[in-house]
Amino acid sequence: MKSTTNTKKYFYLRLKRLKRILEDKNIPCMVILKDENIFYLTGFYGKDSDSLFCIVNGDLYLLVHNIYYEQARNSICLDGVNIIRYSFSKYEELSKLLGNYSLPLVGAESNNISHSDFLTLEDKLKKQNKKLVGVEDIVEDMRMIKDDLEIERIENACKITDSVFSSIINSKLSNIRNLSEIELKLEIEKEIISKGGDGSSFDTIVANGINSSKPHHITERKKVEDGLLLIDFGCIYNNYCSDITRTIIIGKSGQKDKEKRLKEIYDIVLQSQLCAIESCREGISCAELDRISRDFIKKNGYDAYFLHSLGHGVGIEIHEKPTVSLHNNLVLRENMVITIEPAVYLEGIGGIRIEDMVQVKKDGCRVLYTSSKSLLVFS
Amino acid sequence: MKSTTNTKKYFYLRLKRLKRILEDKNIPCMVILKDENIFYLTGFYGKDSDSLFCIVNGDLYLLVHNIYYEQARNSICLDGVNIIRYSFSKYEELSKLLGNYSLPLVGAESNNISHSDFLTLEDKLKKQNKKLVGVEDIVEDMRMIKDDLEIERIENACKITDSVFSSIINSKLSNIRNLSEIELKLEIEKEIISKGGDGSSFDTIVANGINSSKPHHITERKKVEDGLLLIDFGCIYNNYCSDITRTIIIGKSGQKDKEKRLKEIYDIVLQSQLCAIESCREGISCAELDRISRDFIKKNGYDAYFLHSLGHGVGIEIHEKPTVSLHNNLVLRENMVITIEPAVYLEGIGGIRIEDMVQVKKDGCRVLYTSSKSLLVFS
Repeated sequence: MKSTTNTKKYFYLRLKRLKRILEDKNIPCMVILKDENIFYLTGFYGKDSDSLFCIVNGDLYLLVHNIYYEQARNSICLDGVNIIRYSFSKYEELSKLLGNYSLPLVGAESNNISHSDFLTLEDKLKKQNKKLVGVEDIVEDMRMIKDDLEIERIENACKITDSVFSSIINSKLSNIRNLSEIELKLEIEKEIISKGGDGSSFDTIVANGINSSKPHHITERKKVEDGLLLIDFGCIYNNYCSDITRTIIIGKSGQKDKEKRLKEIYDIVLQSQLCAIESCREGISCAELDRISRDFIKKNGYDAYFLHSLGHGVGIEIHEKPTVSLHNNLVLRENMVITIEPAVYLEGIGGIRIEDMVQVKKDGCRVLYTSSKSLLVFS
Repeated sequence: MKSTTNTKKYFYLRLKRLKRILEDKNIPCMVILKDENIFYLTGFYGKDSDSLFCIVNGDLYLLVHNIYYEQARNSICLDGVNIIRYSFSKYEELSKLLGNYSLPLVGAESNNISHSDFLTLEDKLKKQNKKLVGVEDIVEDMRMIKDDLEIERIENACKITDSVFSSIINSKLSNIRNLSEIELKLEIEKEIISKGGDGSSFDTIVANGINSSKPHHITERKKVEDGLLLIDFGCIYNNYCSDITRTIIIGKSGQKDKEKRLKEIYDIVLQSQLCAIESCREGISCAELDRISRDFIKKNGYDAYFLHSLGHGVGIEIHEKPTVSLHNNLVLRENMVITIEPAVYLEGIGGIRIEDMVQVKKDGCRVLYTSSKSLLVFS
């Protein structure tokens, strides 16, 4: 990441917001453990790096393993962060550091620390008369509402995704029977790089025929045959993710009845998705939005086959808050970015899923893709 | 995974071992949460699927989210497992289930459950007068020693890796200056699929020139130039990982002194690696093995630049127990599979790492690769 003055501004604003939240909660010291949260706050993204960011009485510390030290120094977007390298235990290093501060309590991200690590750290801090307190989702909640820098990066990720999809449709699908699921997956990943993406945001799903009834099917080596073809992929651009799904029909099945039924279901899923997009705006709850989409599918008799929630937040992570499900009463707010992806899965027949990413607005939402959702049939 | 009788045998043996351990520890009920541990025990591998496997008084339950139900049913390698689907909270479902059992305590993998989830589950079980107890690393410890089925799969993953490396050396490196790091990475990933692998076991590292001093460099779009070229990749075969690193020199730098120094360092790293391989056998501790390799580098003045531990276990996960480091006194045993990967990283100059996977034997170890470690210089 290029750390221009303009970029830095956003990191300072995020830190300022976090400090205010910690003040309100009376937490003088907070330990951030999730790599994506550390990236959001500092600009350093060490995936699986076992790093730690600590704010204590206004002082900032980034603890990284030796092997990430050079990367951390080069990517950090905040001035005044003390970068400390460790070679063995970050909790050991942290408690040494906190030994210099007189504090009644230390907060740690209780959803991002294992129970055994929590006990280890608790024990070390007890010896300093400090109480370790679990604090949940502070940074995850901040991250739900995207700032302009994030929106710009997500928009770019979505543009690349549109362009990959269009190129796959135009150049690969006419010849699809020569490819296996796994080869088509490779082609998508190659296109992502060639269109300017940094890689896939998750393990690309290419599911053909009855395989498509498994929402998270693992691609196989068998050549693509007549039937449904579900493609679910996304790219990373500047550490932000995209996520899209389209389902198409390959070939003329010869079974006119079956094809007719699939087309009917496709239309139900599409109408359900369009209803949800129509209703998506600041002020509606995740549960209400899911309900609108699910009710449409229910009215048509397929709700038992819509196996998951309507959608999820997308940003630095491919799945992040909010979960757009019946169980989540959280109210959507402007500049949240979520997927809307109703589906119907029929074991032994196949699955149809249509997924867009949208940016929530005051009075509606903006679909971040231009890729068509009309049913494509390749004969 | 094809669940033949022969394959099933291994899963029954693993379950039997686990049951014995639980009996010895007086744990009547154990909750397994890590996807890789669940796969090891049941044959169902739902990566990031939020599943749960529970052994209670000899009864077996696999809890999976709706969207993994079909996959779970098709891949399970144990008979008699009750597969239960949930749509909202697995802990809710679990406590409902455990309500049918009279138990004093329930064990859960404390290193694989977040502190906040632990508290949630603890609370639910308290209402049933059951005590939740954290239990660490039971299945991870079992997984350190590979059975024949695992060795066979790891061997295959390593064979594919050798063949990918050879094909990259033969067909891509003569023309390397036309490729960027990220394009070479794509070529490697394409070769993995074409040689029979199921995909990459981790994000392939291609690091050219000064980039190679960052052990976990993220590939860039710049074309490969004269200097070091560090390639670290691995594949997945039938859910088992491989991991290899080779470092080569591209071009004649024109700076004879620099090239001479790199060759000297290469030789130090290689000799250090060979010393470790020579010493690796059942009975030696991880710390001793790391020390042997590190001491050789120290004798030559570069130990400050060997930034990580000597190696790690490999199997279902790319990094698993044991960590082969100075801090680990665990003694190696037959059929552990570990990497041996000493390195020297010089910021502003580059890094050299040479990594093999070995199978620990009674009286030595078996290197699982045939790829040459002689220094390759492409002009």
